[in-house]
This record gives sequence, C-alpha cells and structure tokens, in this order.
Amino acid sequence: MRELGEFALIERINRGRVQAASVLLGPGDDAALVAAPDGRFVVTTDMLVQDRHFRLDWSSPEDIGRKAIAQNAADVVAMGAWPSAFVVALGCPADTSLDVIDGLTEGMWAEATRAGASIAGGDLVRSRDLVISVTAFGDLRGRAAITRAGARVGDTVAVAGRLGWSGAGLAILTAGAESGDFAEALAAHRVPQPPYPAVLDALDVNGLNALTDVSDGLLADLGHIAQSSSVAIDLDSAALRDPALERLAAQMDADAAQWILTGGEDHAFAGTWSPDCDLPAGWVPIGRVCAGHGVTVDGAPRPGSAGWESFGGAGSAGASQPR
Amino acid sequence: MRELGEFALIERINRGRVQAASVLLGPGDDAALVAAPDGRFVVTTDMLVQDRHFRLDWSSPEDIGRKAIAQNAADVVAMGAWPSAFVVALGCPADTSLDVIDGLTEGMWAEATRAGASIAGGDLVRSRDLVISVTAFGDLRGRAAITRAGARVGDTVAVAGRLGWSGAGLAILTAGAESGDFAEALAAHRVPQPPYPAVLDALDVNGLNALTDVSDGLLADLGHIAQSSSVAIDLDSAALRDPALERLAAQMDADAAQWILTGGEDHAFAGTWSPDCDLPAGWVPIGRVCAGHGVTVDGAPRPGSAGWESFGGAGSAGASQPR
Repeated sequence: MRELGEFALIERINRGRVQAASVLLGPGDDAALVAAPDGRFVVTTDMLVQDRHFRLDWSSPEDIGRKAIAQNAADVVAMGAWPSAFVVALGCPADTSLDVIDGLTEGMWAEATRAGASIAGGDLVRSRDLVISVTAFGDLRGRAAITRAGARVGDTVAVAGRLGWSGAGLAILTAGAESGDFAEALAAHRVPQPPYPAVLDALDVNGLNALTDVSDGLLADLGHIAQSSSVAIDLDSAALRDPALERLAAQMDADAAQWILTGGEDHAFAGTWSPDCDLPAGWVPIGRVCAGHGVTVDGAPRPGSAGWESFGGAGSAGASQPR
Repeated sequence: MRELGEFALIERINRGRVQAASVLLGPGDDAALVAAPDGRFVVTTDMLVQDRHFRLDWSSPEDIGRKAIAQNAADVVAMGAWPSAFVVALGCPADTSLDVIDGLTEGMWAEATRAGASIAGGDLVRSRDLVISVTAFGDLRGRAAITRAGARVGDTVAVAGRLGWSGAGLAILTAGAESGDFAEALAAHRVPQPPYPAVLDALDVNGLNALTDVSDGLLADLGHIAQSSSVAIDLDSAALRDPALERLAAQMDADAAQWILTGGEDHAFAGTWSPDCDLPAGWVPIGRVCAGHGVTVDGAPRPGSAGWESFGGAGSAGASQPR
C-alpha cells in the first residue's frame, strides 16, 4: 500500500465503478454532488474501528465492507428513506495489504448496490488501526420522515428481519466454537442483511407510525421509541420465539431469548403500526404500544437488559459489537 | 469519559446547541434531516488521525475541532456551494478527558457557525487513537457546481486567502522554535481561516471557471485543475511574494517561496477567472492559464514540488500535515 501511494490507490478503488443515477458527480473533485429530488436529505454516520467493531481474524475484508455499509443503509431506511449515496473515509496502516483494501471496497460496493445506491466519494488516510467511517444519504420521496417519536398507544409493534442471529454468531466466535453447524449464525454476524424492501415497499401502506433499526438490541432500540414517543411497549415472548435459534442456543448452552432481546447488529427493522392496519409482507407482530414508559416482556420488566454503549455499560467489553 | 458513558456524553455534546435553519432534524433519531432546496447537495469527507494530522501537544482541542470543520467547509465552498450542515464521527480512547471532548466540540461548533451551518449529528465510538471524521454538505442555490475542470486558456489564475503561513507554522513547530514572533504563523497552522465569503460573495460575478481549495499545496492543487481542465498554468513568482512571510523565513533560514508553493493546509481558494472579468474583492491575480499541461513558475517547472500524499511521497513524513 505504501508503495502504491494515495493517488494511485484512490484511482484503483474507483476504477470501473458505475455510479447510481442519484450520484451526479462522483470522486475526483473537491466534493461530490448527489441528487436530493425531495428538497431534503436524510444523513447518518457510523465509525467502525478494528478490534472494536470488527476483527480481521473473524471476518473477511468483504464482510467488513458489507457490514459497514449495511448498518448505515439500515439507519437511512429506518427513517423511511431510499438510500441515494454513501461516502467513506478509510484510515489504514501503511502496511495494509492491497487484498484487504480491495476486499473492503468490493464489499462496500456490493452492499451499496444492494441498497440501491453507490459510493460517491471518500477519503483515504494513514492510521495506526483500520478505521472505517461511513456516511449514508437517503431521499424521502416527498413523505414525512418516520422517526422514533410517532408511536401511539394501541399500535402494533412488529419486526421485519431476523433477531438474535448476529448475537448468536458473536457468541460462537467469542467461544471459539466455529463449526459447520453454526454457519448461518456466523454469516448473520459477519454480514447483516437488513431487509430494506420490507420497509421501502411498505411505505405506500399508511400506518407505520414509528420506526427504527435494531442495532443496539431489541429492548434498547424499542426503549428509544418508547422514550421518544412517551409510551410504553409490551412484547409477547411467544411471538419472539425462533425454534432454529433455540436449537442453536441449546448446543451452546445459551439462552436464545437473551440473544433475541438484547443482541445487536442484526439490523432488522422494528416499527409500530396503527392497529387498524394489515401488516405488510415481511412484518411479524411481536407486541403492543401501551400507556406508560419503558419496555416490558409479557408485562414484566426484563432485568439486566441494557443495550450496547461505547464507553462503559454491560455490552462494552467485547470486540465486534454494535456501536 | 468511560465513567460518563456514551449516551450521557452524546447528551452533553448536544446540550443547548441551536441548529442552523438548514438542519430540519438534528441528533437523536436513526438519522438527521437536512434541507437541500437546490434538489442536489454537495458532499465531502475528511478523516483526521491523531499524531498524523494533528498533535495534542501542538494544538488545543478547540483548534483541532475548528480545523477539522474548516478543511471540510473549504471543500464545500470550493465547489461554489454554501455550507448547510456537518456530521462528525469521533473515535476516542476510553481515557480521553472531558476537557478534550468539550474543546473539540466547541471548536467544531464555532467553525460550523462561522461557515453558516451547524452539526446535524454524529457517532461516538471508542478507538486507540483519537480519530475525527467529518462529512460536510452544501447547497448550490441553483447554480452549476464549479469544478476543477472548467479552466480555459487565457483565464487569470487568482487566489483568495493566505498561502504558506500554515506551512511556516508547521516548520516552526517541527523545529521546536515557538516564540512570540511566530504567533501569526502558528495560529495559521493551528486554525486555518478559509475566506468563505471571498468565494460565496463572488458567485454573483460570472467568470469563475474553475475552483479548488489549497489543501495539498498550491502547485499540487493547481496541478489538479490543470489536469482536469487539460490546460497548463503558469504562475508569476513576483505576484506570489509575501514580505511578512519572507522576514519570517529569513529568521528560520527557510525559503518563503517553498512554503507558498508547496505548503498545504492554508485552505485558501485558487480559481481561474475569465480574462474579461474584474476580479472581485479578496482575489489576487497570480498567473495565467495556457495551452499545454502542468504547472510552471515564471515559465519553468519547479523541481521537487510534489504535494502531500497519505502514503509515500515527499510530504508523508511529518505529523500534522494535510491529507
């Protein structure tokens, strides 16, 4: 990498890339230019740090690149917006191999394309650890943003996408218990697959009042909705059960419900829907919005269920956890 | 910082902030929402890494925060766009003092305000080194972007803002020669002050054909214009002289012209103007666009004048250099 130099490396990263129609001017000038036909744009940013948010011995560079884009795209979609573009700032040690750079950028482009967008530009600097900083943009297509603040008493709480599988994969990696049986959970941890269409195709259906993606754990993320909307949420544990995950948990001597309720990084979507509304395809009801505050399961608070915090807090010990 | 925890720290950073009118939804949800009345937005991103792009023993946290925003705002303005918002991802060691965080964020907000915008959101993670990743947005107000590709043979090359002072400040810090005499150069290195209005107020004047900010060094950045526009640029060394900088260089046994031609990080603006156009206030003519390729000074190439590259290259040895 040192041999190639910054400008040649940037040229290598961008060579042959086809930008989405929303990217009006791509890399190569002082700034890029992105379409915002709505007259507003949604923006979110996440930083991933080596050995903190990912490990090169646990995930391939492609996986890490995909995950970096997916977690940002999920935040855009969780506002009810269509991803339009990404920019990526990458800090790399000088001895980073070209394979790592190539893998990261391939993974990023693959997931950006899956999200319907492309990578409009970036920055490349030298750093001691590998650091990936992604900023993602989206267009609301004339609709109001769907925030965490719109939940109403009586709403149905529902999820689109899997819960607990990324947490299971992390537990397997932490225990060093990799084997063929666990491939599905490992893949879920390495490359979350947020079901973007479950949200974007559902935006024509009125009744989605509040929305978030599950990045810090279901209880923590629904806690944000409850707090922002000044409501309580009660979950139905039976609706959250996942037999395949329970079989896996039994092999690991672990608790599937704990993974489902507190595991982060699945980047499923959790929303609250008006009670008179038929849930669109891909959405599964898991609970109800009530008066009060906080999140309960079967009417009772669940102890020790704090989500991920970057500094301190229950979840902060391990590498390769969500923000 | 570890004691306070991520969520309390984010609350502390955002407490009492007043967002610019262009920020429709600030921090606190899955994403922010920024106005783009033009139907497009300009976007640029830069990552700054501790001991590579800044040193805490050379600059205060406030200075570093200002600089991080200024260099991104300069890229937005260098497209001919008005800054509308910034997002910031911050990686911090767990033992980072609150004074450092407070200083960084105060500096960022001060410069964002000076640029006419605000900080719409961000991310906060733990990392081994301090890493600051800024993404900046701007609105073109219905005009075409001013790229590096619009220079025409016969154009006047002109600059707005000072050149060489940041490079002088870096040389002084590197030599450990700090003293009262050098305060102006040190300040220029610690906090570049891009003259945003010199560009933004000039956009009503037709004739600014190509534009960039001077981040990698004048010769390197004009080289980008020359290459993108398929033209040559010849500079007039007499027009570039700066008596105050020459006096300072004499004290340091250094070459002021070298600082002016190859020093980065001043974030002055360099543009090419139609020859029939009166230069607006704040712009000084320094050369001419000619047929050919490359950048010359008084008709001759200047040896050893490569700009900054992140990996390898002449400028890559020292910390606290531009990208």
